[in-house]
Amino acid sequence: MSKGELIFIGIGLYNDRDISLRGLDLAKSCDMIYAEFYTSKLAEGSIQRLEKLIGKKIKILDRNKVEEGNLILDVSETKKVGFLTAGDPMSATTHVDLRLRAVEKGIKTIVVHGSSIFTAVPGLLGLQHYKFGRSTTLVSPEGSYFPMSPYNVIAENKKRGLHTLVLLDINSERGRYMTIREGLDLLMDMERRAGYGVIDENTLVCGVARAGSEDCILRAGPLKLLKYVDFGPPLHTIVIPGSLHFMEEEALRKFASLNIKR
Amino acid sequence: MSKGELIFIGIGLYNDRDISLRGLDLAKSCDMIYAEFYTSKLAEGSIQRLEKLIGKKIKILDRNKVEEGNLILDVSETKKVGFLTAGDPMSATTHVDLRLRAVEKGIKTIVVHGSSIFTAVPGLLGLQHYKFGRSTTLVSPEGSYFPMSPYNVIAENKKRGLHTLVLLDINSERGRYMTIREGLDLLMDMERRAGYGVIDENTLVCGVARAGSEDCILRAGPLKLLKYVDFGPPLHTIVIPGSLHFMEEEALRKFASLNIKR
Repeated sequence: MSKGELIFIGIGLYNDRDISLRGLDLAKSCDMIYAEFYTSKLAEGSIQRLEKLIGKKIKILDRNKVEEGNLILDVSETKKVGFLTAGDPMSATTHVDLRLRAVEKGIKTIVVHGSSIFTAVPGLLGLQHYKFGRSTTLVSPEGSYFPMSPYNVIAENKKRGLHTLVLLDINSERGRYMTIREGLDLLMDMERRAGYGVIDENTLVCGVARAGSEDCILRAGPLKLLKYVDFGPPLHTIVIPGSLHFMEEEALRKFASLNIKR
Repeated sequence: MSKGELIFIGIGLYNDRDISLRGLDLAKSCDMIYAEFYTSKLAEGSIQRLEKLIGKKIKILDRNKVEEGNLILDVSETKKVGFLTAGDPMSATTHVDLRLRAVEKGIKTIVVHGSSIFTAVPGLLGLQHYKFGRSTTLVSPEGSYFPMSPYNVIAENKKRGLHTLVLLDINSERGRYMTIREGLDLLMDMERRAGYGVIDENTLVCGVARAGSEDCILRAGPLKLLKYVDFGPPLHTIVIPGSLHFMEEEALRKFASLNIKR
């Protein structure tokens, strides 16, 4: 067993105030603090405010540095290292991979959970958790790369009456965060290619912007109307509902200004 | 619009240190604090410590008082009310219902998210989020009431290679929290009734106890072995994996001492 430690600290959904007391306690006790924000995005100024709260510099790593992992693992062999990530720290495969490699090296790991888009978005819309099928992520097509899996996941869920949480592409290096509108356009493109009738202009869809913030926007309505809603800055998320329980429909009306003129 | 406010504050997974800074800030600003713990359970002493942190008495409501809702809603019409719940506040239908009724009465509502079992358990086991189908809850059968839906959900997910998160019954009034062993026995009972071959003594299952705590236990192995693991005090959760990616299998070995002698 090495003397070091690697603590994965989920700092939650939106800004520096979403970290838990336990997360903050542990971060303060670390010798070194790293963070990554390529799998998510916090509100402006959050990192600077977190540095003040913790009383330590936060070293932000890019995707390569995290995936390659050697830096964090080397330091964790002898020091107590905190690794901050938005949301819940173990929702991203790359963090699970890092934890696996730490365990292999005999480094003690601790996980501090955080509030996450996976739980928050269904709840904000008032949609029931156990009625969600598997979730999916829309990525921006590049050249001939046009993955159809999100369309297939939605189709599969819909057939069984289940809702789908659709996360949208994040490209933090280019500062590009897919918007709800772009996501809906992409889904319509997929429909045109596949033609199974999974989605059309009248399909009921939900958009959620900046879940967990005070200026969070929730809207539900037919795709053709939702496309023109101004959701403001990132992050955006889409939900494609399956069959709605009456209380869920009521919730979409009350919480997400459901406009059902189709 | 009423002058009051109703703030749903998720206090996270395990104890008083899992509340977020934002949740604590808002709780401190409230005139009245209510809480319920019949949908979950916090570690011993957490509520007393939360009262100290917040600097206010927390009035704990039983299921009837929350479901009926009039007390909270009446007070929220004129006062700033905090309503504390374990996990994420909008994961339970009864809280969504309460929020709906508040909105109907013109009461402003705010949601503060918390870390949740729905996100934490998959991540702790290193299982990938987008490979989970719908989740389900095992409830204790009573008399002729023997709901088979969890069995059907697992069957449906397995057929598609997907994992299932299985929450276990909570009966806080009687202080009864279903254990992993009881849950596995119940699933075997369902198999005997239905006979579709969804689960048997050799099926790979995972057990997670006290997710989010420092003495969290994770184990994966064939049902016949997992039944005899001593997981200690509640809360317990079961995961029935579908098909495993090699990295997921590796994670179960490293994080959950996967014992695959079947």
